[in-house]
Amino acid sequence: MAEKEKLTIAVLSGDLERALAAFMLAVTGASMGMEVSMFFTFWGLNIIKRNEGSLQSKGLMRKMLNIMNRGGAKRLKLSRFNMLGLGTWMMKRLMKDTNMPSIDEYIAMAKDMGVKLIACTTTCGVMGIPPEKDTFRSEVESLAGAAYFLGEARESKVTLFI
Amino acid sequence: MAEKEKLTIAVLSGDLERALAAFMLAVTGASMGMEVSMFFTFWGLNIIKRNEGSLQSKGLMRKMLNIMNRGGAKRLKLSRFNMLGLGTWMMKRLMKDTNMPSIDEYIAMAKDMGVKLIACTTTCGVMGIPPEKDTFRSEVESLAGAAYFLGEARESKVTLFI
Amino acid sequence: MAEKEKLTIAVLSGDLERALAAFMLAVTGASMGMEVSMFFTFWGLNIIKRNEGSLQSKGLMRKMLNIMNRGGAKRLKLSRFNMLGLGTWMMKRLMKDTNMPSIDEYIAMAKDMGVKLIACTTTCGVMGIPPEKDTFRSEVESLAGAAYFLGEARESKVTLFI
Repeated sequence: MAEKEKLTIAVLSGDLERALAAFMLAVTGASMGMEVSMFFTFWGLNIIKRNEGSLQSKGLMRKMLNIMNRGGAKRLKLSRFNMLGLGTWMMKRLMKDTNMPSIDEYIAMAKDMGVKLIACTTTCGVMGIPPEKDTFRSEVESLAGAAYFLGEARESKVTLFI
Repeated sequence: MAEKEKLTIAVLSGDLERALAAFMLAVTGASMGMEVSMFFTFWGLNIIKRNEGSLQSKGLMRKMLNIMNRGGAKRLKLSRFNMLGLGTWMMKRLMKDTNMPSIDEYIAMAKDMGVKLIACTTTCGVMGIPPEKDTFRSEVESLAGAAYFLGEARESKVTLFI
Repeated sequence: MAEKEKLTIAVLSGDLERALAAFMLAVTGASMGMEVSMFFTFWGLNIIKRNEGSLQSKGLMRKMLNIMNRGGAKRLKLSRFNMLGLGTWMMKRLMKDTNMPSIDEYIAMAKDMGVKLIACTTTCGVMGIPPEKDTFRSEVESLAGAAYFLGEARESKVTLFI
């Protein structure tokens, strides 16, 4: 049997529209029979952080960064026209109107379709996030570093940096 | 005859500098004999929207989003140092001084050189843009979804997400 | 002997977190035996500009753009939570705490490991930066245009646009 073609997506951004684009492509790739990995780093870690995860980190600075930078897929904002939340609220309404899944729903869909969600260990430290499995949603399969990402990318037909 | 190598560029950003980078690479790729597709999504849709396109969408929310987020290549701004338009104006002056084409000129050049310009149907809805050919400039060849983009990317030598 | 696999990274962004991601991947790729090129364009040129480079450009507009947009790896800021410098300062503290190299250190490491640092000539003009070797740090190997970048990308196993 032929091996599956791989699609690897690095998600550095925590902007709502970039997170949506990443999941649209991941889920579409999986539905086309590709083997998909998503690698979350820097602000992208917020997308897959548990909502209640903000109090576990050690040290004042980490705590502060963690409170300012609370995770959770529901808190993502647009990079433009956020307008104190109005623009983001409007896009979320339009997502519902046009039957586009929310990020929460996309995470569940991705998991169901075999997309591997991986948290970047190398950047947890500077984001003030404990590099432990418990920090992240249950859908996250593993934590790994930059070498793992490049290893996947080398074997991939398509690699995207979002 | 050997098949042409493909270059596929996804343009999610609507920032002036990212739009310029995308067109520079598209036009350069075409001049090197590559077969180039550009796939515009989210804010990138603004780059290829008709200027007069803002009143055709249905529903109050779409109308509002469309007015705030007016399209047209001339309205693109820098992501930094926009400074109420001063920074963007300065870069546009420097573009003229250094004989760099404007986005309008780049769109015409790209079309002339056989670059395919494609609007993403999947994200028209959440951007409040009618997913119809008339919404976009005449240079836009077609509208297509995420599966089309990934299909192109799979066959491409180089895929860029900008 | 088998040829080395290539990794080509375009760095358009001048945000601290994107610069860090680019260097992490470049250095990791080199340590995995890949042949790595980094191609700096638009705001990315700031990362490799000399600190004292701001007074050499000609013309009032270039001088102004150059003063507003002073280069140097130490001046990079986060794209979010900069908060008049507080967020960036905090991330830099966390970088030290977790033994992550600074951008200055990453540039030296990259050079030592054979990563090629290349400045984009095509965009120097619009950034108000003299397209000369002296504008950039000594670690920068050469200046080249978009065609050079695409030539490298065509031969690369992995190409990232950051």
